[in-house]
Amino acid sequence: MQVIETLEELARALDKERASGRQVGLVPTMGALHAGHLALVERARAECDVVVVTVFVNPLQFGPGEDLATYPRDEAGDIEAARRAGVDHVFLPPVEEMYPGPVLTSVRVSGLADGLEGASRAGHFEGVATVVAKLFAAVGRCRAYFGEKDYQQLLVVRRLAADLSFPVEVVGCETVREGDGLALSSRNARLTPEERAAAPVLYRAMQAGRSAIGAGERRSRRVAAVMAEVVGAEPLARLDYAAAVDASDLTGPAVLAGDVRLLVAARIGSTRLIDNIGTTAP
Amino acid sequence: MQVIETLEELARALDKERASGRQVGLVPTMGALHAGHLALVERARAECDVVVVTVFVNPLQFGPGEDLATYPRDEAGDIEAARRAGVDHVFLPPVEEMYPGPVLTSVRVSGLADGLEGASRAGHFEGVATVVAKLFAAVGRCRAYFGEKDYQQLLVVRRLAADLSFPVEVVGCETVREGDGLALSSRNARLTPEERAAAPVLYRAMQAGRSAIGAGERRSRRVAAVMAEVVGAEPLARLDYAAAVDASDLTGPAVLAGDVRLLVAARIGSTRLIDNIGTTAP
Repeated sequence: MQVIETLEELARALDKERASGRQVGLVPTMGALHAGHLALVERARAECDVVVVTVFVNPLQFGPGEDLATYPRDEAGDIEAARRAGVDHVFLPPVEEMYPGPVLTSVRVSGLADGLEGASRAGHFEGVATVVAKLFAAVGRCRAYFGEKDYQQLLVVRRLAADLSFPVEVVGCETVREGDGLALSSRNARLTPEERAAAPVLYRAMQAGRSAIGAGERRSRRVAAVMAEVVGAEPLARLDYAAAVDASDLTGPAVLAGDVRLLVAARIGSTRLIDNIGTTAP
Repeated sequence: MQVIETLEELARALDKERASGRQVGLVPTMGALHAGHLALVERARAECDVVVVTVFVNPLQFGPGEDLATYPRDEAGDIEAARRAGVDHVFLPPVEEMYPGPVLTSVRVSGLADGLEGASRAGHFEGVATVVAKLFAAVGRCRAYFGEKDYQQLLVVRRLAADLSFPVEVVGCETVREGDGLALSSRNARLTPEERAAAPVLYRAMQAGRSAIGAGERRSRRVAAVMAEVVGAEPLARLDYAAAVDASDLTGPAVLAGDVRLLVAARIGSTRLIDNIGTTAP
């Protein structure tokens, strides 16, 4: 396995792979790799000839006061995990390689990126879109694997790839969960034992939302209220948002119909967690 | 010569060229090809193995009230000119191919794109940056040739390529001029004979600015005033801006030093023309 630290070396290595007729699978991550990331790698290995994992905690997508400084990092562990998972190239650039000077160029996806996480975290998706465009530009033609755990991000990235004509097929992969429903996240490592015990409340809230729809509720506000109530009953949790929206574009119709996405964001102690599931309002 | 109408076909054709070891030269244009464009093609042919010319009048870079509808178009003539110039691929997409739906994703280069043309034409460079990012993404690794005639655009595109890590080397090429100094431009076709006779006033203004610097003037405002005065003396011309700025980043120091760019924009009758030249304040 090759560890790459520069964009030029990354681009050259993948040009070479493609010139040999190999399809490239890309798994962009912020490191602290867990079984959720490894499920993306496994899917990429199954569908592509060569897999590159990128590990970069992108400062652009953290707002002031967010957890950039404390975001979990484990470069040695990530390299080892990638090796064991059969990854071919790990791209692990220093910040100065990605942003050698002031970042004048930014990429924005309007509409899709404005609500939910975009409303809670000003500038977040512009940071995501900019770094993903940069990775797509350097990597070139590939299939790129993103987790549904960050569902809004998945839609933003898919739209970005299409709008800017990147020869990249964006593949969404199902969220990996603990036995009690908690979605795997690098941030889970920061939960105290009590917080960890409280954290599955996000999943329970979404299940309550799904049950309400299953029982015939179609008013998006009512479904959101059901979810908010579940989170509100957990003393260690503070709700950021609970929403029931159209799964294709995250718009919030008053009356749900067709594919619906239920999304929740909450702070458990000092750690902010997000989650989502899909369902159908027949 | 191959005429290509879809982004996918473009990307595939150039992947194939590169897989055969050929270096790709890209000449992005808005068509109505003239000797200025053909000089870009010639340079690309000299430095690359295969040359692609793109012809697309990009609606995103025209503001409301600008000349999108009347911008000169000559697709048959462009194809013939490209063929005669030894171009290998012409990319001539319909608008619906480039923008099949609402354009949610936009690319912005701050700072560089804010003054001069950016100040006169709101949204112009965002439109340019977005379509150029789209072309770079589809084309992939290449050398891309842009005329110095649109000097600010050249700097914006170069910065965009670097910031977003496109494997694209942006090459600036000297402006081609008529015998009387008028820079070649597709828009020249719209000048009446009287306007055409008046149009070299832009070049004369810049030469006066250069002479002032040569004679020891270092105050950027004074140099700009000298240029404005020349344009002002031409009854058919209405000045938009005249500026003497740092050639590397278009900032306007009060006192000029080193590489300087002199830029002028003016309306000749109803046609807006821009031009620029370089000089040195030793």
